[in-house]
Amino acid sequence: MINVALFGFGRIGQMHAANLSKHKEVKILYVYEKLPHLNKLAIKLYNCKIENDYNKIFSDKKVNIIFISSPTKTHIKFIEEAMKNKKTIFCEKPLDLNISRIIKTLKKVKKIKPKIQLGFNRRYDPGHFSIKKDLDRNKIGKLEKIIITSRDPSPPPISYLKSSGGIFRDMMIHDFDLCRFYLGKDEIEQVHAFTSSFQPFYKRIKDHELAVVTMKSKRGVICVITNSRHCSFGYDQRIELFGNNGMLISGNKKENSTEFFNSRQTNSQKPFLNFFIERYNDAYNLQLKELVLLHKNKINPRSTFEDGYIALKLANAAYKSLKLKKTVKV
Amino acid sequence: MINVALFGFGRIGQMHAANLSKHKEVKILYVYEKLPHLNKLAIKLYNCKIENDYNKIFSDKKVNIIFISSPTKTHIKFIEEAMKNKKTIFCEKPLDLNISRIIKTLKKVKKIKPKIQLGFNRRYDPGHFSIKKDLDRNKIGKLEKIIITSRDPSPPPISYLKSSGGIFRDMMIHDFDLCRFYLGKDEIEQVHAFTSSFQPFYKRIKDHELAVVTMKSKRGVICVITNSRHCSFGYDQRIELFGNNGMLISGNKKENSTEFFNSRQTNSQKPFLNFFIERYNDAYNLQLKELVLLHKNKINPRSTFEDGYIALKLANAAYKSLKLKKTVKV
Amino acid sequence: MINVALFGFGRIGQMHAANLSKHKEVKILYVYEKLPHLNKLAIKLYNCKIENDYNKIFSDKKVNIIFISSPTKTHIKFIEEAMKNKKTIFCEKPLDLNISRIIKTLKKVKKIKPKIQLGFNRRYDPGHFSIKKDLDRNKIGKLEKIIITSRDPSPPPISYLKSSGGIFRDMMIHDFDLCRFYLGKDEIEQVHAFTSSFQPFYKRIKDHELAVVTMKSKRGVICVITNSRHCSFGYDQRIELFGNNGMLISGNKKENSTEFFNSRQTNSQKPFLNFFIERYNDAYNLQLKELVLLHKNKINPRSTFEDGYIALKLANAAYKSLKLKKTVKV
Amino acid sequence: MINVALFGFGRIGQMHAANLSKHKEVKILYVYEKLPHLNKLAIKLYNCKIENDYNKIFSDKKVNIIFISSPTKTHIKFIEEAMKNKKTIFCEKPLDLNISRIIKTLKKVKKIKPKIQLGFNRRYDPGHFSIKKDLDRNKIGKLEKIIITSRDPSPPPISYLKSSGGIFRDMMIHDFDLCRFYLGKDEIEQVHAFTSSFQPFYKRIKDHELAVVTMKSKRGVICVITNSRHCSFGYDQRIELFGNNGMLISGNKKENSTEFFNSRQTNSQKPFLNFFIERYNDAYNLQLKELVLLHKNKINPRSTFEDGYIALKLANAAYKSLKLKKTVKV
Repeated sequence: MINVALFGFGRIGQMHAANLSKHKEVKILYVYEKLPHLNKLAIKLYNCKIENDYNKIFSDKKVNIIFISSPTKTHIKFIEEAMKNKKTIFCEKPLDLNISRIIKTLKKVKKIKPKIQLGFNRRYDPGHFSIKKDLDRNKIGKLEKIIITSRDPSPPPISYLKSSGGIFRDMMIHDFDLCRFYLGKDEIEQVHAFTSSFQPFYKRIKDHELAVVTMKSKRGVICVITNSRHCSFGYDQRIELFGNNGMLISGNKKENSTEFFNSRQTNSQKPFLNFFIERYNDAYNLQLKELVLLHKNKINPRSTFEDGYIALKLANAAYKSLKLKKTVKV
Repeated sequence: MINVALFGFGRIGQMHAANLSKHKEVKILYVYEKLPHLNKLAIKLYNCKIENDYNKIFSDKKVNIIFISSPTKTHIKFIEEAMKNKKTIFCEKPLDLNISRIIKTLKKVKKIKPKIQLGFNRRYDPGHFSIKKDLDRNKIGKLEKIIITSRDPSPPPISYLKSSGGIFRDMMIHDFDLCRFYLGKDEIEQVHAFTSSFQPFYKRIKDHELAVVTMKSKRGVICVITNSRHCSFGYDQRIELFGNNGMLISGNKKENSTEFFNSRQTNSQKPFLNFFIERYNDAYNLQLKELVLLHKNKINPRSTFEDGYIALKLANAAYKSLKLKKTVKV
Repeated sequence: MINVALFGFGRIGQMHAANLSKHKEVKILYVYEKLPHLNKLAIKLYNCKIENDYNKIFSDKKVNIIFISSPTKTHIKFIEEAMKNKKTIFCEKPLDLNISRIIKTLKKVKKIKPKIQLGFNRRYDPGHFSIKKDLDRNKIGKLEKIIITSRDPSPPPISYLKSSGGIFRDMMIHDFDLCRFYLGKDEIEQVHAFTSSFQPFYKRIKDHELAVVTMKSKRGVICVITNSRHCSFGYDQRIELFGNNGMLISGNKKENSTEFFNSRQTNSQKPFLNFFIERYNDAYNLQLKELVLLHKNKINPRSTFEDGYIALKLANAAYKSLKLKKTVKV
Repeated sequence: MINVALFGFGRIGQMHAANLSKHKEVKILYVYEKLPHLNKLAIKLYNCKIENDYNKIFSDKKVNIIFISSPTKTHIKFIEEAMKNKKTIFCEKPLDLNISRIIKTLKKVKKIKPKIQLGFNRRYDPGHFSIKKDLDRNKIGKLEKIIITSRDPSPPPISYLKSSGGIFRDMMIHDFDLCRFYLGKDEIEQVHAFTSSFQPFYKRIKDHELAVVTMKSKRGVICVITNSRHCSFGYDQRIELFGNNGMLISGNKKENSTEFFNSRQTNSQKPFLNFFIERYNDAYNLQLKELVLLHKNKINPRSTFEDGYIALKLANAAYKSLKLKKTVKV
């Protein structure tokens, strides 16, 4: 059995716990969580230990994997501790909101080379990954354009938004990373951003409701990312790869594959799976499967600490473009 | 110019006239029609001659094509006259409701070999014809099953239904013919029919609202035809060809290719094109194009007098199956 | 914990075992299986008891559910034993190949009223069930036609086919049951069948490769079922419900929701999920969920012993129609 | 009859001539064209007059409509002449490549108020117009984002490209106009552009192979336009309107509505209609229909001289953004 210490038992932590508990080779040994009622819930559901002194967790030899889904500001600290103690690490995105902290840790990561997987779950989605494989198999020739649509069904609570780091660091960070996933060795050089808000509260909290970022890579690939904090028809997740010999699209997942016809419409389909926990359920489990294989030294991570760093760099470039009203060099 | 004498200027006749008038090599010389107000309309729209004595039309050397869209009971008579006068002939389906009359004429047709095209418009539809070509190119291997759905948006007037010959001879006759189109040299050997009526007036007029006919060919291909006299979501026209290496589907045509998404549905599409004049507009024009080529001896007809005869034979077999509650040999 | 004794640990039994082991309230206490290597596998995977004397299993008070996925000819015997011992029962389809055996047991079932669920897994499929709910909510008005397509990707081994009871009792039995599921209180009165075989071995073993059955209900609903023992493009599972105010379709499930475009094709999608274990994975788990609820007296079974009996009656009627070349009254 | 003088009988002119000749109320009286072989073709096809002195055409009282599809640099001159002579005017896009010439003429247009329709054919496409109507009917609530994809199947000859004014003025001008069509009274305020070229000849002729322009309106609507001079899978024409209550998509048109399934793919569809003459055939005819209605004072033009002016202004802003690497205010 591979023993996991799970840091953070909030909404995402609970989802990870459910997946961990279903994996046959994994056991949740510890949960580290500040809120007492969540601790109780963790014990009830998974019969795990609760330890308030995280040092004891890191020094426990029985712990194999440090699984970090605690608040963003704690990520770097726990990664550093886990590295010191030679644990395998999983960390949720974003790494941190402060890029200089990340750069400092990146240097250590490059030296120590821990087994670390970053939580860019979309890289693991069967559909999104299927078009990556087809791209690499040359099914559409050379990649020329990437168009990503990502719309949340509804905004998170304002309290969450306030400390989220903003739409580019909190939400579009996934899409920055996905562009890099498809670009492979090619890297993004230029970034431009537009944002817009129709609900007045976004301006009050200095965030944005809608955002469109365009980017250009060294090779000349143009990337378009379009985000919205709301979407009346569900969690809209689409990727389009345009190549000189074809196009690949990874589309939405629906409740079921039924269609309805009446006098006003034809082929009307069911709503999209509502949000990331449902839509990316397979992705989260495949991510976990690869984490276990990484721990066993069988594969390299599909998403690394450095991927987390560059995604944040692109988010910061988007903010700079917005402020300066310029095309920004990365 | 190729001179056409158009017999019948009712709804279908008017549609044919509009298509004839747009064909660059064709001129409508005569219209033969009993109703005075339709004669007036024909003159106004096409500046053609009206001749009440059809013998004069058949004996006019300038007439090249006899185009028959008059009532069913007149078809055979006009075909016979046209044959005698060596005209090229187009005739709407069905040939007649009385099969022995057809058999008599068939003998003459086999002897005289007139240039005659039967109005099985669906054989000319770009979609339906496209899957025929793909089938013949071996794209799905050997044909094993044909499934045809054909539903009218709403029933014709009861007055029409009463003299229509019934659902098998009036409506399903197209589908019997389409099965034969895809079967090629293979022929249908066995027929079975079920019908049903929910609106009470169908029983009163001894017709049926819904019908399902299954058939089996010499080679073993099973055909399924499903008809309905009403369809709340429009004119539903679908063909499915199942082969040992694949499947081909010819689907419906819609008002336009737009989609609508809201909180209750996704990818909702526009209604189907409403009825045969819109849905098979391309088919009717391609049919006319081939009629002109047939007249010029450039091609053989895609649909023949004999096709009209066999389709009626199958319709009669369906009635026999219904009556005897048996699988009927053709 | 609810203790289950699983009868039969072949391909289907193993799938059920995997689902049972994932259900939080259920424990596999016994596996009853004749083949020693399968017994070993069961112990290894589920740490369960192996008992060769099934009487000991039935008399063990700790056993709550008898889960029957053993060969068809053993079903009735185990159901009878389970009834006597007041166990909750799950039984795979078909109940038996001999209808008089079923009728005898049916009498006891009606008297003893055991908690029994029949393995008509398709009733539990989220898509197929979704259109049932929409039908019952009157979304398409009154039901007028049911069209079911069911094609297996490839035939089972000949050894299996020989003792399967034939295509109607082994394969189409699901579709007979599904028609009844959608018909609700309406019942099927008339049946007609066509079959065909292109591979010669089917005739040798007196089975059929393709089958089409049409049926008519008391109310006048026409049902069309089309089956094939092979399908080059995967496990084809479609249902179409046609009503006087609309149509509902439950379609196929694909590997993922990606599309491919190149110079020869557009919107090309991935293959279907390959076979029933993948395609009906959700259905099997929802079936199990309802079995547990049935055991706890919280719901009535969605599929009953009587459903199993009537489905076989329809299969037999289909054979009779084939033999007599007649429409057969049920 | 409404008499038309057609200026220019090249590829587009010939297409317009074919449509004009099919319109029942219109006659092509003159063709004005410099190339002798095209003049011959015009006479042969339409039995029209050829006049090399265009002043004689403008002064001919019988001429009702001046239909301009001659080279871009002649547009303004012919519009000015037509205005003076009180003709109804149709003019192909773009108005001119020099914005100051346009501004001068615009002043006269505002004063004289001629009946003039600009050739932004996409506004007339049944699909694109259908989503405009649905938007105006409030089907998706308030408009928040417009995403337009427009890809030509292959680039025009280099000779054409050299004098075309470049991708923004020649090709994307349609998409600039379409954004304005959907925005209604709202106006675009900010523009940003990225371009890219993989084929080396584009750099040689100072044009671009791919372009992405993002724009923001006064109300905050974000527009994304993505263009490519090549597209292996055909003429890709898509519009997506995202509103706070839903989404509307106008999609591509295909050769026919057939689908193909085999062991490697499902629901594979036919290629797109290849290029603008086929794809926008209905649009061109509806445009002409409205031109005739405009001539009869029955409607206002759907696309005006001013629309042509603003579209060019946006194209110029895109070039400025590209050069300055900035977000540009219009």
